[in-house]
Amino acid sequence: MREKLLELLNKNGFVSGEKIAEQLGVSRTAVWKQINTLKEMGYKITSVKNKGYHLESRPDIPYPEEVCSKLNTKIIGKNLYYFKTLPSTNLYAKELINKGAEEGTVVVTDTQTKGKGRKNREWFSPPGGLWFSVILYPTMIPPNQSMSLTMVASIAVTEAIKKVTGLKPKIKWPNDVLINNKKVCGILTELDAELDKINHAIIGIGINVNNELKKDLKEKATTLRNEVGTKVPRVKLLKTILKHLDENYAELLKGKNDVVRKKWIQYSKIVGKKITVKDENTVIKGVVEKVDEEGYLILQTNEGKKTRILSGDIEYTT
Amino acid sequence: MREKLLELLNKNGFVSGEKIAEQLGVSRTAVWKQINTLKEMGYKITSVKNKGYHLESRPDIPYPEEVCSKLNTKIIGKNLYYFKTLPSTNLYAKELINKGAEEGTVVVTDTQTKGKGRKNREWFSPPGGLWFSVILYPTMIPPNQSMSLTMVASIAVTEAIKKVTGLKPKIKWPNDVLINNKKVCGILTELDAELDKINHAIIGIGINVNNELKKDLKEKATTLRNEVGTKVPRVKLLKTILKHLDENYAELLKGKNDVVRKKWIQYSKIVGKKITVKDENTVIKGVVEKVDEEGYLILQTNEGKKTRILSGDIEYTT
Repeated sequence: MREKLLELLNKNGFVSGEKIAEQLGVSRTAVWKQINTLKEMGYKITSVKNKGYHLESRPDIPYPEEVCSKLNTKIIGKNLYYFKTLPSTNLYAKELINKGAEEGTVVVTDTQTKGKGRKNREWFSPPGGLWFSVILYPTMIPPNQSMSLTMVASIAVTEAIKKVTGLKPKIKWPNDVLINNKKVCGILTELDAELDKINHAIIGIGINVNNELKKDLKEKATTLRNEVGTKVPRVKLLKTILKHLDENYAELLKGKNDVVRKKWIQYSKIVGKKITVKDENTVIKGVVEKVDEEGYLILQTNEGKKTRILSGDIEYTT
Repeated sequence: MREKLLELLNKNGFVSGEKIAEQLGVSRTAVWKQINTLKEMGYKITSVKNKGYHLESRPDIPYPEEVCSKLNTKIIGKNLYYFKTLPSTNLYAKELINKGAEEGTVVVTDTQTKGKGRKNREWFSPPGGLWFSVILYPTMIPPNQSMSLTMVASIAVTEAIKKVTGLKPKIKWPNDVLINNKKVCGILTELDAELDKINHAIIGIGINVNNELKKDLKEKATTLRNEVGTKVPRVKLLKTILKHLDENYAELLKGKNDVVRKKWIQYSKIVGKKITVKDENTVIKGVVEKVDEEGYLILQTNEGKKTRILSGDIEYTT
C-alpha cells in the first residue's frame, strides 16, 4: 500500500485525501496514518486544506520503496530489507538464506555495529555510508571460479560510481575499489560450498559515501563526498550498483567468465604493474604478468620466479 | 561420572556397589541408577549378591564413552555427540559451529532421516551403518586446496577399513571409497569460506558397515559385512578412522599437501586409467594423466585434448 501511495503522491501537484482513499480502497483515516508514517520516514509532505497532499521531497535512505521501484532488474534487488542499524548485513543475509530467501535479495543498513572486512578485520560502518549484502545462489559456478563473484561486484561498484559521480575508480586486487589510490569500497564474499558446487554466496559491499572516516584511516581511505566535494545520493548509487550487478552477473551465468575477467583487468590496470604482496609471514615483490582463469595473480618475482598469488595484501611499488 | 564408572567396571572380576560409591564419591542409590542407565544403553552388567557388579560386554554403539576413551588424538574426536537418530549429521554440525564448537568435534548417529550426498542426492542411512561428521577450522588452507580435506578423509577411511577388516579399499575420485568396485563409503565436504580463507569445513562421512542396502543400490554398493562375511565392529572402525584422520590432517596443517596427495593417488590407482566423466550435459572419455595440485583430474581425452576435470561422476572404462 505504501508504494501505491507514493506513486499517487509522486505525480505533480496536490492529490486529495479523498481521491487517495478511493484509489487505494481504504478509509481516510488509514490514508492519514500512512501519510504520517511517511513523514516519520523522512518524506516531506505538505497538506493544504481543500487541495490535499503534496510530496515535496523524498529522503535519501535506501528503503525498498526507493531502491526497488522501477529498478527493472532480472535477479538482483527484487527483494530488499532495510534497517537503521544491524550487527552485520552479511550475518543477517545468512539468516535470510536459512529461511529460504530468494536469489538477489539485498540487505542494507545505515550503520553496522559489527561490520567486518576480509580476514575478520573490523569494518567501520557509520551513518552516511552504504553497507549492504546481496544473496546469490550461483550453483552452476564451480567453487574454484568463485573469485568471479567478487569480480562482478567490484565491476558493478566501479561502473556505478563512475556513472553517478563522474569519478574514475580503480579496482585493487583482490577486493577493493580505490579513488585516487585511496580505498573507497571493500567487498567481502562469503561462500557456502561443496567440493564442486557453491550452495550460496553472500556478497558484502561497504562503500564510504557521505560518512566520516576514522582518523587512522584517512591516509589510506576516502569517501565519495570527499572526492566529489558534495554529498552523493546513496539511493541513486545503490540502484545503479544493483543494475550493473544484475547485468554482469547475467554474463557469468551465461558462462562468459572471460568477458567479466577482461573487464576486471581493464578496471584494475594491474597487469604489468610492480607490486609487493604481503601475507602474515611472507613478502613477495614482482611484476604482475597476468590474472589467471581463477582470478589469481601470476607474478614474475624479482628473483625471476613465476608465482601464483592466492591471497595477501598488495601494494603498488612505484 | 559415567566414564569413571565404566573404568571401574572395566577391571576384571566384580566390584562392589560400596566400593564404586566410595571411589566416585556418590551415594549407593546414585550408583544403582547409573548402572541401570548403562544397562539401558546396552552394557551387559551382572550383579551378584555380596560380590557386586561385573561388566560382561559393551555395546557396539558409538557413544562418546566408547569412542573417545583412550583415543589419544591431537585434534579429532576430543568431543563427540551421539544420537539415535538425526535429520543429518552435517546439519547438526553446522548448528554446533554456530554455537562455537571446538575443532575436531564429531557428530555421529545410528540413522539419518535426511542424509544427503553430493549434489543433494539422497543418502540412505539405516541402522547398522556409520554416519558421522567432523568439524574442522582449516583457516590456513587456501580454499582452492579444499579438495585436500576430502582427500585426508578418504585416506583415513581407506586406511581404517584396511586395518580393521583386512579388506583392500580403493578411493574413487572425487569422494567415494570402493571395495571390489562397489561403493562402501561417500564423503561430503561442506565449506564456509571467504575468497582466500576457509572459515569452517564439515566433513560428512557415510559408511555402509552392517546395515541393509536399498534394493536398487545393490549392484553399485556394498557393505563391509557383505564383504567380510561377519559383522564389523563400528566403534573400533570409527576410532581407527578418527585416529588416521587426526594423523593425516596434521600433515595438511604442516603444509605437507604433497604427502597427502601422493597417498591419495596411491590409494586411488587412478593415474593411467581410462575413464568416462559424466556431468549434467557432458560426457568426456579419456586417460587420467595426473591429479593436479588442487586435486583435479588432468585428462588426456580420446580427441587428444588435455582437460581439467573439476566435477562430475566418473566411471572406469575397461
